[in-house]
Amino acid sequence: MSSSAPLRDPYKPAARVAGQRQDVWSIVNEAAAASPMQPIVNMGQGFFGYNPPQFVIDAAKLALDKVDCNQYSPTKGRPRLKKAIADAYSPFFGRKLDPEKEVTITTGANEGMLSAFMGFLERDDEAIVFEPFFDQYISNIEMPGGKVVYVPMHPPPNGAFETSSAGEWTINMDALEAAITPKTRMIVLNSPHNPIGKVFSREELLAIGAMATKHNLILLSDEVYDKLYYVPFTRIATLSDDLWQRTLTVGSGGKNFYATGWRVGWLMGPEHLIKYVSAAHTRICYSSVSPLQEATAIGFEEADKYNFWEESKKEMKGKMDKFNKVWQELGLPYSDPEGGYFVLVNMAKVKLPEDYDFPPHVAERPRDFKLSWFLIKEVGVAAIPPTEFFTPENAHIVEDWLRFAVCKNDEILETAMERLRGLKKYIKE
Amino acid sequence: MSSSAPLRDPYKPAARVAGQRQDVWSIVNEAAAASPMQPIVNMGQGFFGYNPPQFVIDAAKLALDKVDCNQYSPTKGRPRLKKAIADAYSPFFGRKLDPEKEVTITTGANEGMLSAFMGFLERDDEAIVFEPFFDQYISNIEMPGGKVVYVPMHPPPNGAFETSSAGEWTINMDALEAAITPKTRMIVLNSPHNPIGKVFSREELLAIGAMATKHNLILLSDEVYDKLYYVPFTRIATLSDDLWQRTLTVGSGGKNFYATGWRVGWLMGPEHLIKYVSAAHTRICYSSVSPLQEATAIGFEEADKYNFWEESKKEMKGKMDKFNKVWQELGLPYSDPEGGYFVLVNMAKVKLPEDYDFPPHVAERPRDFKLSWFLIKEVGVAAIPPTEFFTPENAHIVEDWLRFAVCKNDEILETAMERLRGLKKYIKE
Ligand SMILES: Cc1ncc(COP(=O)(O)O)c(C=O)c1O
Ligand SMILES: Cc1ncc(COP(=O)(O)O)c(C=O)c1O
Repeated sequence: MSSSAPLRDPYKPAARVAGQRQDVWSIVNEAAAASPMQPIVNMGQGFFGYNPPQFVIDAAKLALDKVDCNQYSPTKGRPRLKKAIADAYSPFFGRKLDPEKEVTITTGANEGMLSAFMGFLERDDEAIVFEPFFDQYISNIEMPGGKVVYVPMHPPPNGAFETSSAGEWTINMDALEAAITPKTRMIVLNSPHNPIGKVFSREELLAIGAMATKHNLILLSDEVYDKLYYVPFTRIATLSDDLWQRTLTVGSGGKNFYATGWRVGWLMGPEHLIKYVSAAHTRICYSSVSPLQEATAIGFEEADKYNFWEESKKEMKGKMDKFNKVWQELGLPYSDPEGGYFVLVNMAKVKLPEDYDFPPHVAERPRDFKLSWFLIKEVGVAAIPPTEFFTPENAHIVEDWLRFAVCKNDEILETAMERLRGLKKYIKE
Repeated sequence: MSSSAPLRDPYKPAARVAGQRQDVWSIVNEAAAASPMQPIVNMGQGFFGYNPPQFVIDAAKLALDKVDCNQYSPTKGRPRLKKAIADAYSPFFGRKLDPEKEVTITTGANEGMLSAFMGFLERDDEAIVFEPFFDQYISNIEMPGGKVVYVPMHPPPNGAFETSSAGEWTINMDALEAAITPKTRMIVLNSPHNPIGKVFSREELLAIGAMATKHNLILLSDEVYDKLYYVPFTRIATLSDDLWQRTLTVGSGGKNFYATGWRVGWLMGPEHLIKYVSAAHTRICYSSVSPLQEATAIGFEEADKYNFWEESKKEMKGKMDKFNKVWQELGLPYSDPEGGYFVLVNMAKVKLPEDYDFPPHVAERPRDFKLSWFLIKEVGVAAIPPTEFFTPENAHIVEDWLRFAVCKNDEILETAMERLRGLKKYIKE
């Protein structure tokens, strides 16, 4: 047929990208860039302040000299990387992973999770996400037409008054079960958890797993911080054969090897799940970055030789403990992380000057955005307001907290501590 | 609410990834791996048989030593790359491109195009695609719920009998207009064209552009082979201000710098289109690979110093002309490419032995799949059957053709030619 131009706006964006309010990253980054305290100490986003280990950098450089390492990799990933991952993870899973069928490579953990949602969610299917959440889960579930159903995690009741373990943040299992409907297809888990730093206990995972079994759901277990745990770490996929059959476990080369810009991730699980993740990934990115897949493979192959995993964990735990001393000095309670590189600090005691002039896009947000703004402008340290990782309804749960990333050089951490001591004068018991 | 386990298959994949027949790449690759003629000469997939230029490799290695080049880049891309692209393309567009607003970086051209469809297509919106098509367009349009409407291109009428220019493949403009409905939002164009090798003329682009203007549509112009044109090359976005306003132009670092495995691509266009592509990209991949974005930036900055673009084009045209001599020798007509690195050859004269034993998954496909299989097994050269890039309805148009990629080393091309001479005995005038 022939039609004359409809009177619509030809450039109208799809609803999935239209009309988003400004995201937390750009608010914090723009504030940081405009702060009088330059250079700002940016403990906001979770990128590393230092390079990947030299043996991994060297591996990447070597790969760049090889013709096939610069061309398209197979859509499911380079055989060498799939094998290196299968070899490295088989002991953790207590089963021999099949590199061809039970591992698939993605463009960062992020696109891997999108591939999982694209592989299994039809329009109006529901996925359960715990609050606080990694913000990309939401758009990634919504892209295939899925609906997010939220279940909040709760801080320890006395979190505003005393430091306690991040493990004391809890999920109400009745609330979880109440959130499940006949439309539910997936539960998204994250352990070690960003931003809380909680490592889910075996008991908690068994309870969540039982729910997945009872209601016949797929578990997406985001374990990108799997090398950074300071208490025993359990993978939900290892708890029973049934849970193996229904779990996709997510990993990230960026997080493991301090190379968040490399965009190499992977999913592991049974063939009946992995094959559709691969199929979706092929349609999204076609294949993932070849030379850095090769370097990541070599990273896994050689990590033990350099005792890298043990050093890596020790180093991060050292940074965490060193940095958190400043909260002890200040008498500000924090949630002591069991894993990962983020720490949540409770700032209820910090009294913001009553007449302080916040810009409208901050003034209209919960108190944590104001705390973040104030720290950037007056103290020179950037941190992330965690209400961004909650629905408006539940945001009040964390409106007194801020998230700091400690994956930074020691001098940076020291500068941050020195600056944060300046908070003293705003702290009222 | 609480419900007991529904009786459904918990692992049921979403329709968008379920039940796909085997794709052409894996059919050809598996056949190649199983051929008695080892090593097979693989002229199937369009990856390069040689490395990116040394100055670009060196740039990548240098980037790997820099902390910020290994960490997350801004979601819209590294400022240096956006600037390098804006600087390099401004002369082609005849306008000063704004690197912050009119360029956005994606994970290969592929994920860039998905981002465009995700940015503008709502469920049931239609996008027009010409046959033959780059196969990823289809799933990328369908992912946001869009519907592909096909318009075939037609080979020159005497294509089975004599060699003619790839420019003689035509679109019937009435058929194009007839395909437009009130649901149409986009037209996808590709010039230089894969697999045809056609460079759309100014007149053709004006006609297509007029249709876009009349019906108020967005144009997605896939120009990933933009450095490889052997006749004058026109970019549709440059033909009028109206066309600039409604066109997204797609580029690929992988194609430009012989690095298909690097996954760096970009879209250029007016802010009102680019901003939603960026927004979708952020939700798909978050950001793209940092060190190789940096290397691509340096590639653009330094290309002229090495006279790279001119050499690159001359070299590819040389490979094309050299390789096509074998068809002249054999008396097989081909479609002489005006751009890119693929050549379509007409094999109507090749008589396949009547009792030849094709496996079922090949026997059930059109004749070009049989030709491809036969060449792999009997001649030792792999090529792609182009009916894969058509709907079943229009597949007959190309069932006698095969696509060869010439982006391979000269010795490989010579081996291929030597082997292809073996076809002589199957050719009947
Ligand atoms: C919980 C969580 N999952 C996934 C990711 C993304 O990982 P990648 O960089 O490999 O895409 C992040 C990054 O911050 C994260 O915090
Ligand atoms: C026409 C066309 N567009 C896009 C692409 C994909 O480019 P990239 O590798 O940058 O994703 C290709 C790759 O073959 C292609 O032929």
